[in-house]
Amino acid sequence: MRMVDLIEKKREGLELSEKEIEFVINGYTNNQIPDYQVSALLMAIYFQGMTNEEATYLTKSMLYSGDIIDLSEIAGIKVDKHSTGGVGDKTTLVLGPLVASLGAKLAKLSGRGLGHTGGTLDKLESIEGFNISLSEEEFIKQVNDINIAVAGQTKKLVPADKLLYALRDVTGTVPSIPLIASSIMSKKLASGADVICLDVKIGDGAFMKTIEDARELSKIMVSIGRSLDKKVTAFITSMDQPLGFSVGNRLEVKEVIDTLKGNGPEDLENLCIEIAAYMVYYAEIADTIEEGKRMAKENLTNGKALDKFYEFISAQGGKITDLEDFINVKSIYEYKAKESGYIKTIKALNIGLASMKIGGGRETKDDTIDPSVGVVLNKKIGDKVKKGDVLAKVYLNKDISDEIIGELNEAFTITKDVQEKTPIVKEIIN
Amino acid sequence: MRMVDLIEKKREGLELSEKEIEFVINGYTNNQIPDYQVSALLMAIYFQGMTNEEATYLTKSMLYSGDIIDLSEIAGIKVDKHSTGGVGDKTTLVLGPLVASLGAKLAKLSGRGLGHTGGTLDKLESIEGFNISLSEEEFIKQVNDINIAVAGQTKKLVPADKLLYALRDVTGTVPSIPLIASSIMSKKLASGADVICLDVKIGDGAFMKTIEDARELSKIMVSIGRSLDKKVTAFITSMDQPLGFSVGNRLEVKEVIDTLKGNGPEDLENLCIEIAAYMVYYAEIADTIEEGKRMAKENLTNGKALDKFYEFISAQGGKITDLEDFINVKSIYEYKAKESGYIKTIKALNIGLASMKIGGGRETKDDTIDPSVGVVLNKKIGDKVKKGDVLAKVYLNKDISDEIIGELNEAFTITKDVQEKTPIVKEIIN
Repeated sequence: MRMVDLIEKKREGLELSEKEIEFVINGYTNNQIPDYQVSALLMAIYFQGMTNEEATYLTKSMLYSGDIIDLSEIAGIKVDKHSTGGVGDKTTLVLGPLVASLGAKLAKLSGRGLGHTGGTLDKLESIEGFNISLSEEEFIKQVNDINIAVAGQTKKLVPADKLLYALRDVTGTVPSIPLIASSIMSKKLASGADVICLDVKIGDGAFMKTIEDARELSKIMVSIGRSLDKKVTAFITSMDQPLGFSVGNRLEVKEVIDTLKGNGPEDLENLCIEIAAYMVYYAEIADTIEEGKRMAKENLTNGKALDKFYEFISAQGGKITDLEDFINVKSIYEYKAKESGYIKTIKALNIGLASMKIGGGRETKDDTIDPSVGVVLNKKIGDKVKKGDVLAKVYLNKDISDEIIGELNEAFTITKDVQEKTPIVKEIIN
Repeated sequence: MRMVDLIEKKREGLELSEKEIEFVINGYTNNQIPDYQVSALLMAIYFQGMTNEEATYLTKSMLYSGDIIDLSEIAGIKVDKHSTGGVGDKTTLVLGPLVASLGAKLAKLSGRGLGHTGGTLDKLESIEGFNISLSEEEFIKQVNDINIAVAGQTKKLVPADKLLYALRDVTGTVPSIPLIASSIMSKKLASGADVICLDVKIGDGAFMKTIEDARELSKIMVSIGRSLDKKVTAFITSMDQPLGFSVGNRLEVKEVIDTLKGNGPEDLENLCIEIAAYMVYYAEIADTIEEGKRMAKENLTNGKALDKFYEFISAQGGKITDLEDFINVKSIYEYKAKESGYIKTIKALNIGLASMKIGGGRETKDDTIDPSVGVVLNKKIGDKVKKGDVLAKVYLNKDISDEIIGELNEAFTITKDVQEKTPIVKEIIN
């Protein structure tokens, strides 16, 4: 088999076989196929796409390039969740304790944030003492003991994906739907869960800009999961505005706690209840999705999910003593409405960038994060506002700058027309 | 400027600027941009194409990556010619002496053959003593003295094209029309001529398979030439069957001599007269193309072109004493018609492959050539044949094999219907 023939085959829009895709991934991982041939193939895939079968073969080849976590020592059905990334996306921190409190086993490996999007690990590490480096034994034991553990990904997991992603990043081949699908699914499958819920975000603050792209990505991922005997459900959800009100690590943890007390933002709460319902249904805890929803709503108000959150934090060494102390910044800047009307946009991208630029996120991988800073919205799309109303509070440890105000000006638009509030979950694909 | 941004720009179908293309070519030539980014860009160019302006900038950047031959010491207008490659294509060896005998200055750098297509250098080197390694001084002096010189390309000419071509060859990015155009034109422009005639072959034995592709390639090359103040004419010519009767190095040289005596195959003679007419017209030797044709026809019958051929061969150390001796093989296999009718196809690809496989061409760059062997057609498309008539003679230094006969079977088809003979030159673009 010659790599150049495979590049030409894909360039001509033909389907690569399982053996051919294995040849590429094994050859690349073993340094037998050079970068320049792989990048040409990736660009050909960008233009010609991949069938569901090809994406499945690619996922399998990447999956088998490294370790696969064996969760068989955890009794029962294991659930996992992945978000394609957004602004203010603290779903895992609500959903995890919620489903764990209902008896589902959540064994989750998470990542860090980059650019305008945050990462679950950064939010967890904003809690004093929280340890994300668990050994496989510790990880499994904790799930068996308290139903939930969240840890960082090990380097041995899906090395082919790490290589490919690094190459895609510098060769303009990141935004290819089958490549994105294979990258996500290989990591999720390597993590060993039986049930996988995928939160595919769309909107200006998300990786997927259109419902069509989100649908295509969702369908490929569900198809890959099914081929490998996993129960996969994709939720296409809105990232037209940040999820909830808070953006910034500790500010988001605080909002998680509010939500687990039953006082969370409507969009975040609805999203968590929806996904939790599917998780407990597939984990055979609820008989129907509707029953799952009822159970989830109940545990968000009876304190059980909140107790599970503190149990989980504490099991991994974390400690939150005083919530006022937890968010302690030098100053708070109030961003106010310039006119009266209805909020038409709160662009997630600009809010995410504002939070990143004041130190709440990373511009490059090596940047350090200030866990306390961020942006807290006072309003959401569709809300009626009067000129001078506070639209958002910026939590700062340095002075506010014109650049940050510029991002907020870009984010918010106010109109005279009444704006419809749209549901957070747009489609469910399984 | 970041290479990844340029890849993405091209991927999205946008036009790269002159500065951006210079950045890529200079960066690649100076080892500052890695192969894997360039190959991704090349694949994006394969899919998105290039405007004439982009192809011109690319050509200029490649051209200035190395030496440019200064022909200013040659008095008068310098002409040059390039063929995209075909089977039995000995045009340069007829055309060169023909236009030189009419007073045009032909200073030509040539290449070798690979696969089913032959190369001018191989044909010249099949002549005992012929030297293709001339210094720039020798080359210029010979053109000044006798109006014609043909030499091998030096390594210092267009190094960026050599790098890019080697990368394209292993990354499935060879068949991109703007990349082909830039590669050809950068080499032609580096050779320093004022007038460039391009023979763009189409058909199964050629690089371009369709008239549309040939037209596109021709138009881009003419546009590039014009942007750099050169007179460029492209001739789209048929490679549905081999050019002339003979395929194989010495066999072709013999056919060249026959043609220069006025006894050549009609297609080869017509092609040479047509191109010669444009060359002498643009070299300001003939007042019109028609006058150029008359002059070319005259010198093909009055012996002047033939004399110039021998003068040229002799100037570069070559010697042909006895034409019978020149073609001296162990055996000749006669391939005969299996039925009566009209010849419908003589596929150039299969004839070229047959000649290559008996030793007349190279399968890989390191193969050596047997200069005496080859295939001589007895018939051309449209000829009426009777069952048992000899269709072709195979000149061999080893035994005929089923594989070779298979190629001939593949090449020839005979039909009961009368077949139209089509002209060799299909279109002229300038």
